Amino acid sequence: LVCKVELLCIGNELLIGKTLNTNSQWLSEKITKLGGDVTRVTVVGDDVKTIASALRETLRRRPDVVVTSGGLGPTFDDKTLQAFSKAFRRQLQLNRNALRLVSSRYAKVLGKKDPKLTPPRLKMAMLPVGAKAVPNPVGTAPAVTLTASGVKFLILPGVPAELQAIFEQSFAEPIKKMAGRQFPYETNIVISGLLESQVAPLIDRVMSEVPEIYVKSHAKGGEGTKGGYLELHFSTRARSVKTARDRILRAVTLMSQLLGSLDEEILTSRSRFLKQEP
Amino acid sequence: LVCKVELLCIGNELLIGKTLNTNSQWLSEKITKLGGDVTRVTVVGDDVKTIASALRETLRRRPDVVVTSGGLGPTFDDKTLQAFSKAFRRQLQLNRNALRLVSSRYAKVLGKKDPKLTPPRLKMAMLPVGAKAVPNPVGTAPAVTLTASGVKFLILPGVPAELQAIFEQSFAEPIKKMAGRQFPYETNIVISGLLESQVAPLIDRVMSEVPEIYVKSHAKGGEGTKGGYLELHFSTRARSVKTARDRILRAVTLMSQLLGSLDEEILTSRSRFLKQEP
Repeated sequence: LVCKVELLCIGNELLIGKTLNTNSQWLSEKITKLGGDVTRVTVVGDDVKTIASALRETLRRRPDVVVTSGGLGPTFDDKTLQAFSKAFRRQLQLNRNALRLVSSRYAKVLGKKDPKLTPPRLKMAMLPVGAKAVPNPVGTAPAVTLTASGVKFLILPGVPAELQAIFEQSFAEPIKKMAGRQFPYETNIVISGLLESQVAPLIDRVMSEVPEIYVKSHAKGGEGTKGGYLELHFSTRARSVKTARDRILRAVTLMSQLLGSLDEEILTSRSRFLKQEP
Repeated sequence: LVCKVELLCIGNELLIGKTLNTNSQWLSEKITKLGGDVTRVTVVGDDVKTIASALRETLRRRPDVVVTSGGLGPTFDDKTLQAFSKAFRRQLQLNRNALRLVSSRYAKVLGKKDPKLTPPRLKMAMLPVGAKAVPNPVGTAPAVTLTASGVKFLILPGVPAELQAIFEQSFAEPIKKMAGRQFPYETNIVISGLLESQVAPLIDRVMSEVPEIYVKSHAKGGEGTKGGYLELHFSTRARSVKTARDRILRAVTLMSQLLGSLDEEILTSRSRFLKQEP
């Protein structure tokens, strides 16, 4: 029972490199910790046709959940709901709950009982048929949920503070429930004095001897240079924290023994150290 | 003559939120400045089947270039070339040029004339039929180029320093040439004291009066709060720097006039300022 999640990030600012996509990292880390499995991230620009294609494409891969970010605001370049409408042939209509949320937000911000509901403001309350509005505790545009072809779409604004607040308040718990009892566990080991190609066979050995462990190596600081080192990332997921932790411990211990008994070409310095991060 | 580019970033570390995807931002910014048009970014994990599907999917959208990052190293989790082999039915074979690059790199790093070419090392020289090896000035795994169905694939390692050095050395110039004479130009304006929904109609007006200008608004620092402000990003692309700059100037001037003549509900403070970033 793993919850497969895709992310779809919408915004030209991501495609021109103006904005670093911290939303996808934040969501990925969060969802992984909740026991979910992020299988793909897609980034597209502010174009209805492109967003709509990307939405339809997700259906083919049968994720349980698709989280979108961006494109819910009042300006012309906010096209996400229009794209949902096009992708799933659901007309946009004024959603009462969304209207109430938008209206009370402007009442508060402007300090007026009856703020003008101009077209840009009404735009944020026009949702595809069957969609639901979700409160935005720190911003104006409500989030939206929608189910299409059995896939749950969680539609978030792109402003990081808003995305995070809405996710924590309304989406974290449901994803945790969908994922069931899944405890992810990970640790890092840092090795110096060896090349990635020398450690490669040891990783293979650890992965074949310890079930359901995943070891990934990252060469850092310039491989083969003075400052170069290798980071090994051990990760697993189990039904209990104990099982997950025991598995990681076994793998790290085995790796340490294999490294100790290694008789290999050695780099400039013979020293190599193991440092385990918390 | 715009060069349409897609990015495909490969690595589980991106999908669990362990690593922030700075490669996609770096590449996007670089390619935009060279006159190219990044149309999509996709992130997938270290799985041959998934990478291969993602590669085949890019063909449908007919980009000119696809840049991939990650998965070229010596360890089992480096699966990018295997995925290319599967996606385009091209067998992996020992590439002489790649072998020369890998071998001379290990000779240098280990200070030996004939470094052992162990299986993990040979792995980096096994390229799909028809692929070419490209020197990696700061790391071990060569980059690779491959053309399939008229799409040029530029295949880069995921270590940022290596990705950047290879791109600058071997790929920047060809992309610039493919893009032709395209000068992108952009500027930011910062506005306080107005809500995004108040500025929305002005943006529409500027975009309809100044041709080929794109204005995108970003609410920052909490809309409607003391620290909140709006950032307007003006961008365009033209055949000459002068045309591009003139267009941006016209748009910014018009926006400034429209803001000056605005008679709207105003926030707590009546002040609003315009600050133009370089």
